[in-house]
Amino acid sequence: MNKATFYHAGCPVCLGAEHMLAEAIDPKYQIESVHLGENTDRILEAEKAGVKSVPALVLNDQAFHINFGASIEDLKH
Amino acid sequence: MNKATFYHAGCPVCLGAEHMLAEAIDPKYQIESVHLGENTDRILEAEKAGVKSVPALVLNDQAFHINFGASIEDLKH
Repeated sequence: MNKATFYHAGCPVCLGAEHMLAEAIDPKYQIESVHLGENTDRILEAEKAGVKSVPALVLNDQAFHINFGASIEDLKH
Repeated sequence: MNKATFYHAGCPVCLGAEHMLAEAIDPKYQIESVHLGENTDRILEAEKAGVKSVPALVLNDQAFHINFGASIEDLKH
């Protein structure tokens, strides 16, 4: 199963990107949505995958940044 | 038929995003790939859809910027 992880912080830009993904990603992907503001324990995992800002989509370990909502640095505090 | 237009400029960042799209976008979308550096006559159309930089994906008239390759302003010259 292909895995798609969507990292966000609940921002309006994030929600727009999430809506797009839910609509446009191939159903062969299993999508998990992670709110990094509420799940700060997963920030390290996101950074390891190359996530520098949210919203971001990690597809099979490759990170893609979609538009710009917030820097991942700002989510650590 | 849903329409997805991918605007790019041949940059490495663009190619990575295009590969992701070809792999991950739902097959219900018809994907058109437009090289704005070679097709400057389509820059206006991209701007009208809200494209500010490439690579960008326009899904049914909504623009999403994926990572950052080049500003659309730089493609006009």
